[in-house]
Amino acid sequence: MAYSNLNVNEVRRFCEAVFTKRGYTPEESADITDVLLMADLYGIESHGIQRLIRYHLAIEEGSIIPGVRPDIVHQTPISAVIDAPKSMGQVLAKKGMNMAIEMAKSHGIGMVSVRGSNHYGIAGYYTDMAADADMIGISMTNTEAIAIPTYGKKAMLGTSPIAVCMPADPVNFWYDAATTVVTRGKLEVYKKQEQTLPSGWAADENGKDCGDANRVLANIIGKLGGGIFPVGGYSEETGSHKGYGLGIIVELFTSILAGGTTSPHVRNSGNADTSFCLWAIDYGIFGDKKEIKARMSTLLREIRESPKADGQNRIFTHGEKEAESAAKKNKEGIPANEKTISEMKLIGEKLGLVMGDYINI
Amino acid sequence: MAYSNLNVNEVRRFCEAVFTKRGYTPEESADITDVLLMADLYGIESHGIQRLIRYHLAIEEGSIIPGVRPDIVHQTPISAVIDAPKSMGQVLAKKGMNMAIEMAKSHGIGMVSVRGSNHYGIAGYYTDMAADADMIGISMTNTEAIAIPTYGKKAMLGTSPIAVCMPADPVNFWYDAATTVVTRGKLEVYKKQEQTLPSGWAADENGKDCGDANRVLANIIGKLGGGIFPVGGYSEETGSHKGYGLGIIVELFTSILAGGTTSPHVRNSGNADTSFCLWAIDYGIFGDKKEIKARMSTLLREIRESPKADGQNRIFTHGEKEAESAAKKNKEGIPANEKTISEMKLIGEKLGLVMGDYINI
Repeated sequence: MAYSNLNVNEVRRFCEAVFTKRGYTPEESADITDVLLMADLYGIESHGIQRLIRYHLAIEEGSIIPGVRPDIVHQTPISAVIDAPKSMGQVLAKKGMNMAIEMAKSHGIGMVSVRGSNHYGIAGYYTDMAADADMIGISMTNTEAIAIPTYGKKAMLGTSPIAVCMPADPVNFWYDAATTVVTRGKLEVYKKQEQTLPSGWAADENGKDCGDANRVLANIIGKLGGGIFPVGGYSEETGSHKGYGLGIIVELFTSILAGGTTSPHVRNSGNADTSFCLWAIDYGIFGDKKEIKARMSTLLREIRESPKADGQNRIFTHGEKEAESAAKKNKEGIPANEKTISEMKLIGEKLGLVMGDYINI
Repeated sequence: MAYSNLNVNEVRRFCEAVFTKRGYTPEESADITDVLLMADLYGIESHGIQRLIRYHLAIEEGSIIPGVRPDIVHQTPISAVIDAPKSMGQVLAKKGMNMAIEMAKSHGIGMVSVRGSNHYGIAGYYTDMAADADMIGISMTNTEAIAIPTYGKKAMLGTSPIAVCMPADPVNFWYDAATTVVTRGKLEVYKKQEQTLPSGWAADENGKDCGDANRVLANIIGKLGGGIFPVGGYSEETGSHKGYGLGIIVELFTSILAGGTTSPHVRNSGNADTSFCLWAIDYGIFGDKKEIKARMSTLLREIRESPKADGQNRIFTHGEKEAESAAKKNKEGIPANEKTISEMKLIGEKLGLVMGDYINI
C-alpha cells in the first residue's frame, strides 16, 4: 500500500478539529490527538491515526459518547476508582494519570483505576506522563479476550499490555508490551503478505499451534475458538504459563480492582468496556532521586555496551527505538497509508471539515 | 538418584536446630526453615532443603553472617530501604514483608526494598504472607547475571523472578516465575539426563541458540559468555525483548531503588549481594474487599472451566499445582534425594547434631 509522509503539526490540527467537532473540549481533543500521534511518532502505526476511523465509528454507533462525566466511585489519599461508561479512553486515562501524579506528589504513590471505558491507545503514553513528572509510571489495560490460557482453546485474556517507564539518561526506560507473543495487528500483516505465521504465535480452534493467519483471524472474528498464545508460546517448556500468568496479573490490576468487565466479557455488550490502571511512584520515597536515576542510566548503558551476539551490531534498551523514531518523524513526517488518508478525508467531510485546509499532501 | 520421603515436621525440627546452632535465634531459624520447606511442599525442589548445603557453605566462608543487624537507611510512611550486608535473605525478606504489611494496614500500601543480602529462597513465599493478611503481595529479586539481553551474548540480567499473590477462593492466585525461559536448575537436569536443550532456552558463548547443556553450563560457570534467554526466547519474533524488558523492570524495583548491586555485578565480590522488593497492597483501597476477591475467584474459575486444547484435560491457574503438591506432601512427606540427605547428615555432624535423632529415615 502506498504511503505518504504527513507533517505532524498539520495532522495534529486536523485531528483536534475532528474531535472538537465531535463535541470534545479543545483540551480533550488535544489530549486524544496527542495519544494517537505519539503512537505514530514512536513507530507504532497500529495504534496511531489509522485508528481515527474506529473512534469515528464508535462515536457514530454510540459506544463512545463525548462529554461523559466520570464518576469517582472510590477514593483514598493514594487510590481512586473512576467509573466512566462509554468514555473516550484517552481522556479518562490522562485524567487518571494526572490524579495519580498529584497523589504521588503528596503521598509517594498514586494508583488510579478506570472502568467501563474504551481502548486508550498505547499504554506507554501515560507512563511517559509520570516520567515527565520525574516519577515511575505504570499502566496496564485489559482488552477484548484474544489470548488463550496455556492448554486452553478459547480466548479468555486480552493482549493486556504492561507499560513501565523510568527516567534515565540519555533516554528513559520505556517498556510497553502485550503479554501475548504478538498482537492481532501482526497476524493481519502476515495475512496481507500471505505468509505463514511463525510457530508459537497463534492457536487454531482446537488450541493447536497454527500457521494459517486467515484461519486464525476468521476464528477470532467469528468467536469460533483459538486465538493468540501468551508470551512464551504454547507449552510450559517455553514458558507459556509465564505469559499466561502475566495476563491474569494485568486483569487483576485493571478490571478486578476497578470492578470492571473482565476480558472474557469485554465487548460482549457492544461497548468495549475496558478497564485500565494508572500508577505513579515518586521514586524519591526510596532515596536520593539523582542517585537512583543515575544508577538506572548506568545499568541501561552497561547493557547496551555489552558484547553483541554474532551477526548483531546493537543491543537496544526499551525506549531507544521509539525516541529515535520520534526524532526522525518529527522532521520527516509520519507515514500514513492511502487507506488511512482516505478515511481521514471522509471523516472530515462528514463533519464539515476539508482535510486539505489542514494537511498539505 | 534415589529419593526418600521425609516427614515435614521432622525435617523442620532438624533444620531449625541447624540454624539455631549456627547462631540464629529460634524465631529466625523457624523463618529460614519455613521458607525452604514451602519450596519443597510446593514442588520446587531446587529451592528447598537441597539448598541447605549452600547456606551452610556460605556461613562457613563468611558470605552470610548470622546476627547481622539490618540498618533502615531510608523510610517514609509507605516505604523503606533496608541495608543488611551478608544477611540471610529469608530473615530480611520476612522482616521486610512484615514491615510492608504493617504499612499497608495504615496507609494502603507498603513497599520495602532490601539490599546487600543473599538468596531469599522462593519469591512467592513472601507474597503468601501478604495474602495471609488478605492483601496483594508482590516480590521480586535480582540474582547473579545469567540472562543475556536480546541480541547480546553476555549475561547482564538475573533469572529475576516476579511473584504476585492475590487472595481467591478456593485457591489463591500465586504467580512466581523467573523472567528467563527457564532457570539454571532446568539446564542442570538436562545435563544430567544427557538431553538436548529445547531451542530458545540458552545461548552459547557467541550468543547463538545452543542445545548443548554441558557447554552452556561450563560457559556460565567459567563466565565465558552466553547464558539463558529471557522469556520469549532469542528473537523479537517470539517476544525475546518482552522477557528482557521484564528483567530490567525487576532490576529497577530491586537493586536500582534499593541502591544495591545490579545483576551484572552481583557475586563479583564473593558475597551474593542481592536486592529484593517486598510490596503489600491492601486491595480495600479500591473498594469492597469481599467483592474484589469474589471477582478474582470468578475470573480464575472461568479460565479453569474454559474449553481445553485437544489432548489436554486441565487448565491450571497459578497456585493450584502448588496447593495440591503441599496437601500431598504434608501427608506423604517431602522427597529428598540421597545427595541431599547425606549433605544434611554431614552438616549435622559438623554442628554436633545427629540427624537420626530428628528425622526417621
